[in-house]
Amino acid sequence: MLKQTDALEIVSQNRSFGGRQLVCRHRSETCGADMTFGVFLPPRASKGPVPVLWYLSGLTCTHENAMTKAGLQAHAAKAGIAVVFPDTSPRGDGVADDAAYDLGQGAGFYVNASRTPWRDHYRMYDYVTRELPALLRETMPVTEMQGITGHSMGGHGALVVAFRNPETYRSVSAFAPIVNPTRSDWGRKQLSAYLGDDEAQWAAYDACLLLTEQGWTGDILIDQGTDDQFIDLLRPEAMAQAMAERRQPGQLRLQEGYDHSYFFVASFAEDHVKWHAERLLSA
Amino acid sequence: MLKQTDALEIVSQNRSFGGRQLVCRHRSETCGADMTFGVFLPPRASKGPVPVLWYLSGLTCTHENAMTKAGLQAHAAKAGIAVVFPDTSPRGDGVADDAAYDLGQGAGFYVNASRTPWRDHYRMYDYVTRELPALLRETMPVTEMQGITGHSMGGHGALVVAFRNPETYRSVSAFAPIVNPTRSDWGRKQLSAYLGDDEAQWAAYDACLLLTEQGWTGDILIDQGTDDQFIDLLRPEAMAQAMAERRQPGQLRLQEGYDHSYFFVASFAEDHVKWHAERLLSA
Repeated sequence: MLKQTDALEIVSQNRSFGGRQLVCRHRSETCGADMTFGVFLPPRASKGPVPVLWYLSGLTCTHENAMTKAGLQAHAAKAGIAVVFPDTSPRGDGVADDAAYDLGQGAGFYVNASRTPWRDHYRMYDYVTRELPALLRETMPVTEMQGITGHSMGGHGALVVAFRNPETYRSVSAFAPIVNPTRSDWGRKQLSAYLGDDEAQWAAYDACLLLTEQGWTGDILIDQGTDDQFIDLLRPEAMAQAMAERRQPGQLRLQEGYDHSYFFVASFAEDHVKWHAERLLSA
Repeated sequence: MLKQTDALEIVSQNRSFGGRQLVCRHRSETCGADMTFGVFLPPRASKGPVPVLWYLSGLTCTHENAMTKAGLQAHAAKAGIAVVFPDTSPRGDGVADDAAYDLGQGAGFYVNASRTPWRDHYRMYDYVTRELPALLRETMPVTEMQGITGHSMGGHGALVVAFRNPETYRSVSAFAPIVNPTRSDWGRKQLSAYLGDDEAQWAAYDACLLLTEQGWTGDILIDQGTDDQFIDLLRPEAMAQAMAERRQPGQLRLQEGYDHSYFFVASFAEDHVKWHAERLLSA
């Protein structure tokens, strides 16, 4: 059993596929808020530290949605890797919010906000790239080997985080990601609110612009359903063009008939876990 | 695409593991209410009718919980069998209810109620054994080959339905079932409310009593977590005794460290789907 520490409260533990699905809470200095996240530890973690796959979730989600619906644990247990499910924003009474589903709590967009009223708490980029990885390495049986994936807004987060930190992420993939937020209504609204109207500040959070500018050291797996109800906001065509022009190794797979739901994510969860495990365990 | 008919409204369709996860609504004559259920059709169903695995859910659940959390679709897609997720009770403004979580809506216990105020609508036994199977065969690409499983109250339902109808169910299994409701607080309260105080009427809904009385024509698979927080209400020891005394072929597996959650169900979903598929496809 994992011990509670001053830094980490264990909210729940469930045995899952021979491993453990934990929900943890901690005080985040980065976000100035209590944050909740899920971690799946595979059976192999009882024998020694294992690599970590980060799963960043989409708009409106908490740490819980993918943890209960995406079906990643079965495959992570077999592969012997941990999976971390962070929340999508800071939360709480003292944290700024907006009535819209796509701004404020549940919609942090994995940026460090610089504008009022968001900048006091909305620092999800630093949270998922610095504070939470450090906390995990202090408290959980995990190695420094990290891969990252995510869905929709979380797919955007995964691609941006990997492209900007190739030295700390060995593998990247995404499910129906927002790939070009500077050109989408899922992006312009949020980047404007969190970062202000100077669009030059937005480029650091646009996967297509980052890839075009600097490429990525590994290969990339992206799955996108052809019947995704939000496909015009996701702009897979922009990523297809960026990858092709950059001669970027990777796969952008258009999956016939799939929509934007967790039924889509679960259907390809095995492929993504195997993708990461191959790269994390062979490195 | 499945066509809507007068008898059946398609509420939603999601592609899932190459097949389709449907949610359907229909007017139930048996329950005198509009009923909602889920059906997963595997890829093979596009080529011809497939066998059906029934999944009966537990207290407080609707058709949706297992459909989104139990992870059955991956395995049913591979095996080539459909999975049906009925609701756990009639619902609606005109349907009797109780403030407790374990009586009334969400807690039908898979019985035909004979007492006021329940008897007008609470006929879940007839609903899952007669009306819904007939509707499925009219509207979906399914054969008459049926297996049945379920969780907790739904495990009770699955065992009772199979034991009482060996001619129509070829396979049975259960996750953490209530096996002996006539001797449990998860059972006595509900059987008393729905059927009245004559305990002789209750025996037709007690899996251990049915098995002891008449056995079962096939073999039985039951999984039970050793850390299940409700294990004293489930009474696996009663089923163990009944199976052993009856020399009933089957397996009652006590799974170390697992609790009562969907993390437990999902962890053994593959074993159960394979169990049913082997028996439904070889028959």
